[in-house]
Amino acid sequence: MIIRNLADVRASDRNIKGNGWESARLLLQDDGMGFSFHLTTLYAGEEIKMHYKNHLESVFILKGEGTIEDLGTGLTHELRPGILYVLNEHDRHVVRPKTNILTACVFNPPVTGKEVHDESGSYPAEMDVPPPIPLAH
Amino acid sequence: MIIRNLADVRASDRNIKGNGWESARLLLQDDGMGFSFHLTTLYAGEEIKMHYKNHLESVFILKGEGTIEDLGTGLTHELRPGILYVLNEHDRHVVRPKTNILTACVFNPPVTGKEVHDESGSYPAEMDVPPPIPLAH
Repeated sequence: MIIRNLADVRASDRNIKGNGWESARLLLQDDGMGFSFHLTTLYAGEEIKMHYKNHLESVFILKGEGTIEDLGTGLTHELRPGILYVLNEHDRHVVRPKTNILTACVFNPPVTGKEVHDESGSYPAEMDVPPPIPLAH
Repeated sequence: MIIRNLADVRASDRNIKGNGWESARLLLQDDGMGFSFHLTTLYAGEEIKMHYKNHLESVFILKGEGTIEDLGTGLTHELRPGILYVLNEHDRHVVRPKTNILTACVFNPPVTGKEVHDESGSYPAEMDVPPPIPLAH
């Protein structure tokens, strides 16, 4: 059993800041769970364009409001607490937070954590993470 | 892209009640994400003994307080908002909520949803879910 505290993760190198967002990565690939689990804040007023080519992701809104635009369909959906958006088709999307938005995110396969350090703190408008090493289980 | 609302899930057959807990299953195996994602409430005053023999699970505390006892080590840990507990070794454990505890849970492999209906609403003290059908991806 692993017990982890968000405050400790926020104070560690598992807390990553990008353009318009900040993410506390409570579980990464090396935890061996087969998924990663992040508490991610998307900052008010930002326009965050994303495309995870190699990952599936679900994002549950805990606090805050904004919109997500599905660039495949052109549809825009409201984001507020209790909404889950699911990138089950590697969907290209843009999130536009009206307020700071706090989310609980799950990635499959898990994020390794190394993507970020390889980028030296800078992120492309369309960010992606490379394929991770397969897990034993 | 899937957009889902917790309120809708709570009002559907994806909202399951057990002995001492209630779970809104926002993502199940048939969503094809390779994990399931649940918002689960553990009720104050209950003593919930669990052992997931075939699944890994992470549980993030959103609201409420209590304890978790690791029956393998005998250690008891405090649960409060911001704590993640991770059953990475199919750990036998007991959760004792002091207040209602709201959690965000991830299961790998994903829960199918069929486990519950097979049990006809009753749950053994040590509950488990059967191995799911492997996903294509």
